[in-house]
Amino acid sequence: MILARRVAAEGLGSSLLSATVIGSGVMAERLAAGNDAVALLANTGATVAALALLIALLGPVSGAHFNPVVSLVLAFKNKLAWRELPAYVVAQFAGCCAGAIAAHAMFALPLIEQATKVRTGSAQLLSELIATAGLLFVVLGHRRSRDAPWMIASWIGAAYWFTASTSFANPAITLARSLSDTFAGIRPVDVLPFIAAQLVGAMSGALLAQLVFRHSHSQSTAPAASRNPLSAIRPKERA
Amino acid sequence: MILARRVAAEGLGSSLLSATVIGSGVMAERLAAGNDAVALLANTGATVAALALLIALLGPVSGAHFNPVVSLVLAFKNKLAWRELPAYVVAQFAGCCAGAIAAHAMFALPLIEQATKVRTGSAQLLSELIATAGLLFVVLGHRRSRDAPWMIASWIGAAYWFTASTSFANPAITLARSLSDTFAGIRPVDVLPFIAAQLVGAMSGALLAQLVFRHSHSQSTAPAASRNPLSAIRPKERA
Amino acid sequence: MILARRVAAEGLGSSLLSATVIGSGVMAERLAAGNDAVALLANTGATVAALALLIALLGPVSGAHFNPVVSLVLAFKNKLAWRELPAYVVAQFAGCCAGAIAAHAMFALPLIEQATKVRTGSAQLLSELIATAGLLFVVLGHRRSRDAPWMIASWIGAAYWFTASTSFANPAITLARSLSDTFAGIRPVDVLPFIAAQLVGAMSGALLAQLVFRHSHSQSTAPAASRNPLSAIRPKERA
Amino acid sequence: MILARRVAAEGLGSSLLSATVIGSGVMAERLAAGNDAVALLANTGATVAALALLIALLGPVSGAHFNPVVSLVLAFKNKLAWRELPAYVVAQFAGCCAGAIAAHAMFALPLIEQATKVRTGSAQLLSELIATAGLLFVVLGHRRSRDAPWMIASWIGAAYWFTASTSFANPAITLARSLSDTFAGIRPVDVLPFIAAQLVGAMSGALLAQLVFRHSHSQSTAPAASRNPLSAIRPKERA
Repeated sequence: MILARRVAAEGLGSSLLSATVIGSGVMAERLAAGNDAVALLANTGATVAALALLIALLGPVSGAHFNPVVSLVLAFKNKLAWRELPAYVVAQFAGCCAGAIAAHAMFALPLIEQATKVRTGSAQLLSELIATAGLLFVVLGHRRSRDAPWMIASWIGAAYWFTASTSFANPAITLARSLSDTFAGIRPVDVLPFIAAQLVGAMSGALLAQLVFRHSHSQSTAPAASRNPLSAIRPKERA
Repeated sequence: MILARRVAAEGLGSSLLSATVIGSGVMAERLAAGNDAVALLANTGATVAALALLIALLGPVSGAHFNPVVSLVLAFKNKLAWRELPAYVVAQFAGCCAGAIAAHAMFALPLIEQATKVRTGSAQLLSELIATAGLLFVVLGHRRSRDAPWMIASWIGAAYWFTASTSFANPAITLARSLSDTFAGIRPVDVLPFIAAQLVGAMSGALLAQLVFRHSHSQSTAPAASRNPLSAIRPKERA
Repeated sequence: MILARRVAAEGLGSSLLSATVIGSGVMAERLAAGNDAVALLANTGATVAALALLIALLGPVSGAHFNPVVSLVLAFKNKLAWRELPAYVVAQFAGCCAGAIAAHAMFALPLIEQATKVRTGSAQLLSELIATAGLLFVVLGHRRSRDAPWMIASWIGAAYWFTASTSFANPAITLARSLSDTFAGIRPVDVLPFIAAQLVGAMSGALLAQLVFRHSHSQSTAPAASRNPLSAIRPKERA
Repeated sequence: MILARRVAAEGLGSSLLSATVIGSGVMAERLAAGNDAVALLANTGATVAALALLIALLGPVSGAHFNPVVSLVLAFKNKLAWRELPAYVVAQFAGCCAGAIAAHAMFALPLIEQATKVRTGSAQLLSELIATAGLLFVVLGHRRSRDAPWMIASWIGAAYWFTASTSFANPAITLARSLSDTFAGIRPVDVLPFIAAQLVGAMSGALLAQLVFRHSHSQSTAPAASRNPLSAIRPKERA
């Protein structure tokens, strides 16, 4: 029952995030009159706002991962029960795909499309690796859960611009974007390499976080609950 | 007397919000040289800044609804007295219309115009439904009243871009925008369908919030006053 | 001695604010290739960032008015000693003019110019009145001094767009902008009407704040120091 | 061992900051279709987001200087041990250069280039002096370490626009940008004058901070640890 509500929160948050990414891309491309920098600025602003908001809103319920590689790393860290991981991941993939469909419905597009935007090559994959490594570095390294919304959103917002791939950094969003032949789209054939790069990046970021933050935390005199930046993900322990 | 001041705050806040939405649209369209994405970026930025500010400033006085469907849902939730609802709603509609007039005066336009911008079709109405559902989901789901300003403003800012309707999500603003033949306008004939979609959306968002947040709150050990994210709307109880 | 440091802080903050407003206008106009909406977006972003920062940084020293009509209203409210008002106002005017000169030096322009940008007419003056009224409404109405930076900056940022005058709302900045024949300039002949409108606006905003916020504050059970949103302006009382 | 982790944090943070500055410049220039104002807006947004995030994330570990002149001034202020200064500075220079290489790799550019962008003349050097003076003024003057991220990022974001040089304000970033023949580049021959101006600016800013903030702090009744805005830089003393 508790798990059901948490999974619902993951699915709902994932769908709103995905609808924001894809829908704002459609709107931006329609209005930007060919200036892709303006379109990406709008796309970035909408994504950052929605991501920060959804983490603040749903973090206390489900942890607000919205991202299979985040859930996977947290399972390795014993911050998410392994038995709950499959439900989280399914909700994330299903939610992101539902968000793509919702965005298409709002813009009167076919509900499911096949993306044609080419995103391939080692530079793109290196971009995804670095973007996802940084995401996990921030997720595992921040100190206060109330800072998670703006810190994680800031990383993604910056990475939209400083990586060549515009920083998908999320397998569920990547799959959903393959269903949309719009500004945010990605060819289905490019999805698996992106997800592989994201997995390698997530593991790299987790290792880096362990290297940089471990000792610092172990010296802290704060109680374990407040020391753990991700303690919010298991709300039932707080009751 | 107390009610009078709260209603004045609702009316004043609604008028400043409406003047911002409409006035910044005029300025943006005049300057943007035909690039509607740049115009909407400016319109979004001004709206988000004003909305967050007004919620922080007037929330402690009146609750800072500025929106009839928000007041309606809060009446259902016993967070606004039913007998006070009419005064709130009248102040919101009157305030938003006054804001439109003020914006026109500042830009040397006829004080009242008849909008000609077509906003019709099921995609637009679905957009309003989703935008308003999300708004109520955030209003009812956030945990700390000090986070309400940025969370609500972030939702609206994102929804300006990821919905096809640019997210009016407010019957009073919708009516006021029908009085302005500018960037933010909407044909009078399109107003009622928008409001209907907003009503359905508001109810859907409230139901969703009950589903996702109810148990979580009931398990909390915090006192009721701090648990209720909208407790600020009844300042007289705090005195 | 204490007053000297506070006046130095007012002068320094005013000069940095003015340099930001004028300098970012020069940069934006040079780069924007004729798209004034993009230029004003950049001008707004820089102004908002500098204003929020300077209020947070210098508020604890001098109150961070940077604006003669703010100091005047606070003198009426007994939050600034009348005998200190002249030093504050002189520092604000001198600081803003120094900031204009610094901006010109950084962009290799003549250190002092005579602006030629026409800003006249009743719509412009109404814009200044509303912008300044709102500024005082926010200055007097916010509850926690730590919120002043973002709330005041948000008002100014929004008013850059929803008023026809781009919201000078400050006599010292207005005078300084008359010394700059750039994006932010204003003809010397238009300065006095702007300042008159700002004075009327400031008084209107102060009255409005008294109407909306007075009772609310008098019912509060909080101690006087924390109730007063501008208590930061007299740091010596805190020692 | 402790020093090693702090130095690693400085190097990693410097590299991510540098990759953001340079990478987002490449992306922005590619997409902006010749509108340099739009490109600089995107470059500013990415820089501000990454800088704020990295200060919040790594400040508790190393102090998050990422800047040799900041470390130098803090050594003068006895807030960084002189014997640790060389390691900090080497990590900052090496990190920033590694970030440039990473950005080039992500955008499939030659890993090291020779910049050709001319940045010379007294106006540019005055800009660097003022930008760096302001940076140190903010670093030394802010009161709460949790405000450092947004305050420092706001200064840099504003200074990107109100200075003619776009505010490098950092010798390590300056050197790294000389390795990139892109939007953010600087000719190698222009590097040393920039660094000299930054050094003079840093000292000026430190003197100014001592003038404006000293007495204010000495009157405070707060304990030394919370009074010192940079106490975060020596985490081992907190354990």
